[in-house]
Amino acid sequence: MQMEDMIMVSIDDHMVEPPDMWKNHVPAKWADQAPKLVRNEFGVDEWVFQGEATSTPFGLSATVGWPSEEWGYAAGAYTELRPGCFDVHERVRDMNANGVLASMNFPTMAGWNARTFAEADDKELGLVMLQSYNDWVIDEWCAAYPGRFIPCCLVPMWDIDETAKEVHRVGKKGCRSISFLETPHIKGYPSFLSGHWDPMLEALCDENMVLSLHIGAGFECIARPPEAGIDHLMVIACQVSVVTAQDLLFGPTLRAFPDLRVALSEGGIGWIPFYLDRVERHYDNQKWITNSEFGFGPTRPSEVFRRSILACFITDPSGLEARHRIGIDNIAWECDYPHTDTTWPESPEFLWKELQGAGVTDDGEINKITWENACRFYDWDPFEHIAKEDATVGALRALAKDVDTTRMSREEWRKRNEAAGVGVF
Amino acid sequence: MQMEDMIMVSIDDHMVEPPDMWKNHVPAKWADQAPKLVRNEFGVDEWVFQGEATSTPFGLSATVGWPSEEWGYAAGAYTELRPGCFDVHERVRDMNANGVLASMNFPTMAGWNARTFAEADDKELGLVMLQSYNDWVIDEWCAAYPGRFIPCCLVPMWDIDETAKEVHRVGKKGCRSISFLETPHIKGYPSFLSGHWDPMLEALCDENMVLSLHIGAGFECIARPPEAGIDHLMVIACQVSVVTAQDLLFGPTLRAFPDLRVALSEGGIGWIPFYLDRVERHYDNQKWITNSEFGFGPTRPSEVFRRSILACFITDPSGLEARHRIGIDNIAWECDYPHTDTTWPESPEFLWKELQGAGVTDDGEINKITWENACRFYDWDPFEHIAKEDATVGALRALAKDVDTTRMSREEWRKRNEAAGVGVF
Repeated sequence: MQMEDMIMVSIDDHMVEPPDMWKNHVPAKWADQAPKLVRNEFGVDEWVFQGEATSTPFGLSATVGWPSEEWGYAAGAYTELRPGCFDVHERVRDMNANGVLASMNFPTMAGWNARTFAEADDKELGLVMLQSYNDWVIDEWCAAYPGRFIPCCLVPMWDIDETAKEVHRVGKKGCRSISFLETPHIKGYPSFLSGHWDPMLEALCDENMVLSLHIGAGFECIARPPEAGIDHLMVIACQVSVVTAQDLLFGPTLRAFPDLRVALSEGGIGWIPFYLDRVERHYDNQKWITNSEFGFGPTRPSEVFRRSILACFITDPSGLEARHRIGIDNIAWECDYPHTDTTWPESPEFLWKELQGAGVTDDGEINKITWENACRFYDWDPFEHIAKEDATVGALRALAKDVDTTRMSREEWRKRNEAAGVGVF
Repeated sequence: MQMEDMIMVSIDDHMVEPPDMWKNHVPAKWADQAPKLVRNEFGVDEWVFQGEATSTPFGLSATVGWPSEEWGYAAGAYTELRPGCFDVHERVRDMNANGVLASMNFPTMAGWNARTFAEADDKELGLVMLQSYNDWVIDEWCAAYPGRFIPCCLVPMWDIDETAKEVHRVGKKGCRSISFLETPHIKGYPSFLSGHWDPMLEALCDENMVLSLHIGAGFECIARPPEAGIDHLMVIACQVSVVTAQDLLFGPTLRAFPDLRVALSEGGIGWIPFYLDRVERHYDNQKWITNSEFGFGPTRPSEVFRRSILACFITDPSGLEARHRIGIDNIAWECDYPHTDTTWPESPEFLWKELQGAGVTDDGEINKITWENACRFYDWDPFEHIAKEDATVGALRALAKDVDTTRMSREEWRKRNEAAGVGVF
């Protein structure tokens, strides 16, 4: 296999929701209460919901087209963004330019754990908008290009019954996953150990869907020094995935729901060999704690982990070297478009070099890591819609020869987009 | 090399301080205010200091001689312990039986961060007792067997000036390290980033001593779910070492003090390859944060890490496989006698098997891991006192043929020790 022959499926990217997303999905009764995009006096686009500005469309969340000197906290307008952030047609062109067949997208304005809707004072309104978001994801964003997007929805986590119902509802519509809090106890919700979420987990199993736990919602899980800059948060972010894995593995969750599948999104993979060594030693050496095998019985904790968990990486050279200690079936790749950590538009080069460097030269192993594990785990088959020979890096890039991947300043983007009427709402 | 030829130096063990430790070191004026061991109505030995019971001698802290079914939280008496926990002569016999040449010991009653003295209402009294503890460590415990113990002391962390003075004082007496808080900000002290501790760090550099940061004092750094059992804490404990490394590396500490050497005690090694991958990617990709290389300049963060940090492991098979990604000069071994995680009395078998399994078959690499890195880092030379041929696993074990390593119940230990007058104070 050569780089051009790879098939790349990313299980962690993000869309910046376009302002017209509510148009076709909010019932008439609620239409004028949908979130609205308003450009404020500073030229910043703000989402206004229930009379309050809830978020601006980016900051660090859509830096993909910019030189790194312009990354930062400053809010701005849609016109300053690379259009692939919010326009699905441009997104697919950008995926083609990067050789990426398919992608699962987490939200931006909604909060990748439904924050915007969960914080609504009027919970009925919150639920209506959350369902409208979900319908837009499935029926518009993902449906626009069959075989290119794995649908991922949100749940109304303030109400466990509605949450279970919403899992069933979106499951019936073809959704493959929900995005949820990696450490719910950190956000004031019951923990995974509490049993509170069991109806949701049961619904996910019933619908054969994946629980996707993206890093970020649990940052406060680790108490950083008051002087620590954003570096500390960014570098140690994946340590929270270790905490999540532990909560699920030594809490009852993964044993109570043997069919449950959990993706640790953007959590990296390199921490897993050390973690599995720790749990195996703990299982063997600390049985006094429960006077038993912690309820694992003959199925050792590393087996439960590998049965239930998919981890993914953007760049993770030592994790790839240790792939057999992780589990060759438990590793997927992600692109993280349009965030700062993305390797776009050189993901194939980046990934290929890293695979080669780690000695991943076997075609079977490469395929597992680049697409097979993701498609199996999410039970999602792009080849119902796209022939395999049209799905490779080489084939997709051939479609995208006219895509300009040059980085441009925010100001240049603004001029170009305004002239073309792109990002003007 | 064969297993019997290894030389083993452990940089993390613990002594359970014997009650007569204060006898020779507390100035007469304060003698009656030294901590006293009192057997309470339940037959539990308690350390009483300033009128309060501050700690019992164990619980989980001295399980070495017991079957694992008896491990747990129940407090007890010295007579229930394997005497090697508190008697230096018995300790050396136990080290011989385990083929261990040398050991660095952290405290138990004192708290391995001087907790007992730091919490004293009378700070002058706290300092007197802390200095008495330090003098006992150097002049009795370690001096009893030259070449067998690396002296490690405590500092009066409630007073930074006294802390710096104490580092100098014990350094002049031959101490090689101090034990300190891994995340001081978690215990209400200023963080490593604050600059508050700089006089201590400067003193350590002046005395060519090591800052040893043992896991445990920072457990609260990670917010666990309310239902989580001790498993969670035990399995993810080493994640706090990642936080510590980050605080030191991206805070100014390791760059401000290029001569500072920091040991992450009981922190494991397997997390390091992933962590170094993360910091290297961060250094290359996120320069926007500081508009520079985070102050690292041409010395990359992984180089600073390897220049400054020594990590150690009890059992860590994947870490050993990834030893060259960690740094072959940055890995040391530990025994963790007398805690539950110790591999005593089969540490040579355990370690040898793990080294072989990870492909560590080169004599040079084995020596670095088992003793050379430790001795270089702590600048401590056992061979001033003991010939190398007498320091091997085989040579030491030959001295210890009469040591009975059988596990016995607490009750059996109590009978045996009481009959022999051992542990009766």
